[in-house]
Amino acid sequence: MKARVTVTLKDGVLDPQGQAIEKALQNLGFSGVGAVRQGRYFEVDLNGADPASAQSRVEEMCEKLLANTVIENYAVEIEN
Amino acid sequence: MKARVTVTLKDGVLDPQGQAIEKALQNLGFSGVGAVRQGRYFEVDLNGADPASAQSRVEEMCEKLLANTVIENYAVEIEN
Repeated sequence: MKARVTVTLKDGVLDPQGQAIEKALQNLGFSGVGAVRQGRYFEVDLNGADPASAQSRVEEMCEKLLANTVIENYAVEIEN
Repeated sequence: MKARVTVTLKDGVLDPQGQAIEKALQNLGFSGVGAVRQGRYFEVDLNGADPASAQSRVEEMCEKLLANTVIENYAVEIEN
């Protein structure tokens, strides 16, 4: 089973890296580009066959290691 | 309109950061964790109302800036 985790900055948290990418896209000639936000992405291979328990295990991994929950949100998607 | 972009390392490209996360999860007591791969995630706000043209514009952004296509794959998802 595979879990896909996306970790993003919470609204209101400054994202200078995203702003730099936004400026770079505009400098490359892309028009109509608004805000860009950068985050992180993880793919975690898991043993076991129960999607619900996998979901809760991966959420615990996010709380403990993968995300800084003071400033970041995370989303977990389980794929069989 | 918002585009969600995930950039991941191609199969066969070494991912030491993912391996470090895998070891850290095991050290934290998570069992049954297999390979972990790390990637990047972007949210790009776009003007315009045509999903097909947005998709092709964002794919061009990936080719030119967001991904290193020698070693990385990208996936684009458009959300209205």
